Parts: sequence; structure tokens; C-alpha cells
Amino acid sequence: MARHPEVLLFDVFGTVVDWRGSLVRELGRVGRRHGVRSDWGAFADAWRAGYRPAMDRVRRGESPWRSIDELHLEILTPLAKRAGLRLRTTETQQLNAAWHRLRAWPDALAGLARLKRHFVIGTLSNGNMSLLIDLARAGRLPWDVILSAELFRHYKPDPEVYFGAAALLGLPPKDVMLVAAHKDDLAAARSCGFQTAFVRRPMENGRPLEADVADDRRCSFNADDFVDLARQLERQAR
Amino acid sequence: MARHPEVLLFDVFGTVVDWRGSLVRELGRVGRRHGVRSDWGAFADAWRAGYRPAMDRVRRGESPWRSIDELHLEILTPLAKRAGLRLRTTETQQLNAAWHRLRAWPDALAGLARLKRHFVIGTLSNGNMSLLIDLARAGRLPWDVILSAELFRHYKPDPEVYFGAAALLGLPPKDVMLVAAHKDDLAAARSCGFQTAFVRRPMENGRPLEADVADDRRCSFNADDFVDLARQLERQAR
Repeated sequence: MARHPEVLLFDVFGTVVDWRGSLVRELGRVGRRHGVRSDWGAFADAWRAGYRPAMDRVRRGESPWRSIDELHLEILTPLAKRAGLRLRTTETQQLNAAWHRLRAWPDALAGLARLKRHFVIGTLSNGNMSLLIDLARAGRLPWDVILSAELFRHYKPDPEVYFGAAALLGLPPKDVMLVAAHKDDLAAARSCGFQTAFVRRPMENGRPLEADVADDRRCSFNADDFVDLARQLERQAR
Repeated sequence: MARHPEVLLFDVFGTVVDWRGSLVRELGRVGRRHGVRSDWGAFADAWRAGYRPAMDRVRRGESPWRSIDELHLEILTPLAKRAGLRLRTTETQQLNAAWHRLRAWPDALAGLARLKRHFVIGTLSNGNMSLLIDLARAGRLPWDVILSAELFRHYKPDPEVYFGAAALLGLPPKDVMLVAAHKDDLAAARSCGFQTAFVRRPMENGRPLEADVADDRRCSFNADDFVDLARQLERQAR
């Protein structure tokens, strides 16, 4: 069994916060204000899905560095038009800032507070710093440190992000554990030497029956939520 | 009167934590363990004083980037020898980590908690990230974000640090206020467009009668401590 990590770093979108549920609520409010009805779940899914190809263009060097806020805004503009939402620039920007107000999963605050007793806890997200700061304040998330892909000008799963984070923590990668709801992120972290913990988030995509919540045997821990992860880590420490 | 800042960034050594008092206590303990008596105040002063020329060599590009932890260790090794402290490598490293355990000034925790109600609060220090994380955990300092010169590979007062911090916060420099006990740091921040607040720390160097605690008229605020700064900012907001 690997030794206990010193630091737990958390993926954020989907792992700590419920991006889809939060966006659907905000989109619904904007829709009602404008008298527009649409499938806001599908809108949120398309908004989220657009981020991967946009980010991959940055990752391949085909586009200069742009923050997630910028990428989200680029994706939002045509989506809003297609849905019949006629927004002024400031309204589009306010809606884009919905990503700064995403709600944490119900277990997040209690789980993080408990994990913080034993470990340094921080983010390791593709979200930009100001977005992550806003999420932390809105959800009172007790991070010891906020680390973002923005610091390295590389997006996960580029190895620069994981290695860069460990270097800033002053630790070898093996003393850091990534906690995430996404197996590709965990695999990339593991290939950089991180310990890994998978957390099931069956509601992330709003379709729990389709969600991949099976144990990931390559991970040191598979947990139902952050409180369960805390329990498992405490048990191992005894 | 300038508009209210969105974010308060704090210098750390001397402004938030009492480096000298903390080092003197740790040096005294190590001295007693080794049966060595010395002027630990003078030792702490020399340790701190050595950091400026070492850092300036990095700033001028005469030396590759090295963290404050590395600089502190380089300075400590000959100082310890001169004081008659014969330390093993691990003991020297443990003593060097005293900088990760510096105590906050008595007002810091209450003042920061109060300021955090109104503003995003963070560090902007030449200390490396892992050092700042350890200080925050040891002192339960409720930072929203930890920013370090290490992120920019430039030391204060290089403008890259102040501009880099504002960029990561997603703000123009005028919406950020530096809080510091050192007028040169504040002047550099101001020349980058930051708002500034001077906090008097008469005990920083252990010689209150020699300390420069006069008001700095170029600063928006001059405060006796963080609680006083919170009071002044709250009064201005009314």
C-alpha cells in the first residue's frame, strides 16, 4: 500500500461542483426573463461539450493560451443565439459568469473540512484562478491552496499541469493524490506519479443510469463522496 | 477617493507574521539542545538580511531561479557554523523550515477574518508556495488565494509580480490593494497601478524605536494593524 499522501488535489468541475444542475437553473432564469423556452439541459451539455475541442486547440498549440472564461464565452455566444436568447454583451458576460457560481455537491463542504484535518487540500482544475476563487468563496470551500492549469499555461491532461503542481507544492508526485470523478484525468495524473482517488458522481451529466461509476481498480481509493473518501483514508491511517 | 478594491493582497514576512520573534524562539531551542549560546536576535537579523542580496542576484539574472527556501538554506549554513552550531544536514533542513512555522502577529487572524467578509484576501509574497501554505495552515489564516513570486519567477519589487498577480485575479491593477509594512514594496505596487495600505509593525525588527512607522501619505490607508485597517475600510464604504 502506498504511503499516505501529503496533499489532496481536487478536480473541480463535476467532482466538487455540480456544473450541470447549476447551469440549468441559471439558464432557466435567463430564459424566463426573456420569454424563451428551450431544453436547458441540452444547452448546458453543449456548453460543456464545446470546451473540450476548444481546449484541445490550445493544447495542440493551434490557438494561443485562452482561459476557460474566454473559451466558455466563445462557446456560449452562438449557443445562445441558436436557442433564441437575444442577449446584450453584458448579459452574455453575466450568464458566462454562471460558471463562477456553480454549486458544490451536498457532501463537498463537510468532506473537505474533514479531509483538511489530515491533509493539505487544494484544487487542480482547468478553470482559471479567478473562477476557482469565486467558486471557493461562494461555496465556503476551505482550500489551503488554489492551483489552476492557468498557472502552467497547459490544460489537463497535459503532464505539465500535474508535474507543475507537485513542484509548487515542493513534493515528489507520489506524495500528492488527485481526487476526481473522471477516469481520464486520474489516468494522466497516475502516469505522472500521483496517487489517485476516484469519486462517483452519478448525477454529473444528469443521466445517472449512463454514468460511469464503476470502481477504477487502478485507483488507490474509490469513494461515493468526499465524506466516504475521508472515512476510507482515516481507516487506512490507523 | 479611489473606488473600493476587489482584492486585498498581503505581503507576508513582517506584515502578517513575526519572522524575527519566531526565529529567535526556534534558534534559542536549537542552541539549548546543542549547548550553544549566541545572540539569536543578531543571528535572525543576519539570516533575514542575507536574503536581499541573494534575491537580487536572481532578480538581475546572475543566478538561476531559486526559491526562498533554497536561498534561506544557503544563508543559514555558514551562519550556523559561525555561531558554533554543528548541525547535521537534516537538522539544518529542519531549522531552515522554521520559516514555514512563523507565528502570525496577534491581530492577523481576527483582522483577516473581518476583511474577508468584504474582500477577496490573498498573499503576495516572495516566499515560495509551499512555505506560504504551511504558514497559512499553522496560523489558520483564511486566505482565499495564495499567490507567490514563485508563480512568476520574479521577486518583488519586480513589476512582473504585481502585474502577474492582477492578471491571475482577472482584474485591472487599480482594483487590487497591496497591504504591507514596507514602503518600498508599496511604492513598487503603486507604480504598477495598485492601491496601497501601509500597516505599522513596530516590532518587526525587534527595535521599535528605530522602526519606520510614520504615515506614508502616498498610501490610501495607514493602519495600526489589520483590525484597524478593516475598520477604516468599512468606514470608507459607508
